[in-house]
Amino acid sequence: MTGKPYTFDILLDEGTLSNYDNHLVRKLSDLKGYFNDREAYQSMLGVEEAVLYDVYELHRPELAGELLHGISIIHPGKVGSEYFMTKGHFHTVIETSEVYHCLKGEGVMIMETPEGEWAVEPLSSGKVLYVPPRWAHRSVNTGADEDLVMFFAYPGNAGHDYGSIERQGFRQLVTEIDGKLELVKNPRWLRPEER
Amino acid sequence: MTGKPYTFDILLDEGTLSNYDNHLVRKLSDLKGYFNDREAYQSMLGVEEAVLYDVYELHRPELAGELLHGISIIHPGKVGSEYFMTKGHFHTVIETSEVYHCLKGEGVMIMETPEGEWAVEPLSSGKVLYVPPRWAHRSVNTGADEDLVMFFAYPGNAGHDYGSIERQGFRQLVTEIDGKLELVKNPRWLRPEER
Repeated sequence: MTGKPYTFDILLDEGTLSNYDNHLVRKLSDLKGYFNDREAYQSMLGVEEAVLYDVYELHRPELAGELLHGISIIHPGKVGSEYFMTKGHFHTVIETSEVYHCLKGEGVMIMETPEGEWAVEPLSSGKVLYVPPRWAHRSVNTGADEDLVMFFAYPGNAGHDYGSIERQGFRQLVTEIDGKLELVKNPRWLRPEER
Repeated sequence: MTGKPYTFDILLDEGTLSNYDNHLVRKLSDLKGYFNDREAYQSMLGVEEAVLYDVYELHRPELAGELLHGISIIHPGKVGSEYFMTKGHFHTVIETSEVYHCLKGEGVMIMETPEGEWAVEPLSSGKVLYVPPRWAHRSVNTGADEDLVMFFAYPGNAGHDYGSIERQGFRQLVTEIDGKLELVKNPRWLRPEER
């Protein structure tokens, strides 16, 4: 069950791994309802089926002592004024953390707790980000034309809980206004006591 | 208890982190008994107190859902024909894994299980190494004059068990013979049934 140790290369120029057994591709149509500007979303979908992000990873047993690991690549682009981003999620086992090492690009991680606390941290090459237990997290590529590439690791038993994020998103939208990154209050977001 | 998310930079040129709360320094005298050539060890100790490796990390609660993370820097050098290396250890909670991302330098990870199974994997910039649960691990710098720098992450509850490795070492010594890396059987190593 434990298996043997192994190595693989992060191929940063090609944006992939030398070895993986899971490749997740998230397209614009997979994020229906996630972007705030519904009109911009629909008209973009009519023109092209953009790939928003890729994840390459290696399967491990879904046990607490294991670590799931791989890279996520968020491509550059916007839907209306909102930058391309991942769906974002809580861990199903909420008392589990995640660590990211940013290898390329520019972005932010937007995070919040079930109690409504929120945080935004910058991402750029060489930066490590620690997402403590209980914090939902979403990666956002705020670069003009470069991929945001991050190595990630999290406990094997963590799981993904998309529920509340899928319903109402994060408290802040990450947008570009007049060529600048701006956090905008998400009109769909409800406080825990209002849900 | 969970704390806030945070970021820090890996300063690869300086060989440190922009922020850390634990800095472990392992000197030659801390590894008494670890190198096979006792004579070379003693005579080297008489000349200089070399630093073999540094670890920079951030404390986290010692809980299963947390991830301890930081960088380890193994400096270049040899004691006799044996390359500078870390002490090496099992995790106290043996069913926990560790993931490494090599950022700089050349080396190997030497690993073994309590049952006597062993493995060696190469380390170089851009490589990820997964150490599954149950595998003791030791980093070895096999480069001529460059540090071996690795980012690491492992479960917060893992702990360090130096016991059996301190007593008899790993099954294989990582040595340089005639300018080439060579694995040599460790004469002190005993099979599980002989211990």
